[in-house]
Amino acid sequence: MRLHGYFRSAASWRVRIALNLKGIKAEGVSHHLRKGEQCLPTYLKLNPQGFVPALELDDGTVLTQSLAIIAWLDETHPLPALLPADPLMRAKVRAFALVLAADTHPLQNLAVLGKLRESGLSEAAVQAWASEVNARGLAACEKLAGQGRFAFGDAPSLADICLVPQLGNARRFGVDVAQFPRLLAIEAQCNALAAFGEAVPANQPDAE
Amino acid sequence: MRLHGYFRSAASWRVRIALNLKGIKAEGVSHHLRKGEQCLPTYLKLNPQGFVPALELDDGTVLTQSLAIIAWLDETHPLPALLPADPLMRAKVRAFALVLAADTHPLQNLAVLGKLRESGLSEAAVQAWASEVNARGLAACEKLAGQGRFAFGDAPSLADICLVPQLGNARRFGVDVAQFPRLLAIEAQCNALAAFGEAVPANQPDAE
Repeated sequence: MRLHGYFRSAASWRVRIALNLKGIKAEGVSHHLRKGEQCLPTYLKLNPQGFVPALELDDGTVLTQSLAIIAWLDETHPLPALLPADPLMRAKVRAFALVLAADTHPLQNLAVLGKLRESGLSEAAVQAWASEVNARGLAACEKLAGQGRFAFGDAPSLADICLVPQLGNARRFGVDVAQFPRLLAIEAQCNALAAFGEAVPANQPDAE
Repeated sequence: MRLHGYFRSAASWRVRIALNLKGIKAEGVSHHLRKGEQCLPTYLKLNPQGFVPALELDDGTVLTQSLAIIAWLDETHPLPALLPADPLMRAKVRAFALVLAADTHPLQNLAVLGKLRESGLSEAAVQAWASEVNARGLAACEKLAGQGRFAFGDAPSLADICLVPQLGNARRFGVDVAQFPRLLAIEAQCNALAAFGEAVPANQPDAE
């Protein structure tokens, strides 16, 4: 199994956490996003969207989109479960994850910030955009988080997997994360686990 | 069951299709997005993110995020299934859906286009942004679509539920959708079903 990613990509980071929680080893293959390596023809053959991550299985099958990859991991390697058993709680966990993975992260990825610069926005305006997007998404999650040591209950779930990388992005864009005490408490619980610690960008071989 | 939405919201549209496919009746409650009704305190109590749709159950429980709502519907009302049984095919369907629901739609919703205008972009540049975002997402989906009458197989799935509203948005933003023949063939199959036809914006009571 090969995980095509990039150390700083929040979506790749999510999949690294999920693989670690499941105890699955995958060979990392780095594609340098700032150099545009995800748009090379060889990579586009793997993922026509030109985004990381992509999980390449041993038979050559390629899975894309971090949340789809994580759902596949959870369905094929059920323990430890990354979603609660109760459908209503699953819906809460998924909604929390999607606030970040759908309504936050895609608005502040490299491609979008590059497009904002091309559209004539100043660097300060681009940074303010990224900061505001992160702050809004996290503010919603601060209210949506459930009970327990983690975002929903006493075990890490898809919600925590999406939260930790997004808090990392928020700090990079200068968001004052102290306004999110519940999220920071969840993050501290996550960071105490090796599965999360080993997944952080700074601990990846392609980290700069 | 009450579906809080807006006739033109692509995310609300997705949930309407899913409810129709499942044969579930939900009372529609319209929140006028252009008038900012989704940001009123009464609505924020239902969904702190201030986004539609939200599905309010009879016991007052509120589910948010269209993909989380649809997954809950599929888990609690299994037939007809909105995901294939095979984990790998489920991953393909989810990835296709997420290209649209995570990487396309959130980049061209009302709030983001409003923010681009506030940032100083001309109306032409805002329209070009929305058009390009739609074209990119659909171009990836044209390549990611599987075999069968629908996006993946011979029954509608979450992929089709996300595709049809996004094609609607793409046309509104002036994308030449003729460049996506496979997607248009899938859309034609969908449009032949009452579940899709009854969900289109023009057929909603709050349509303008």
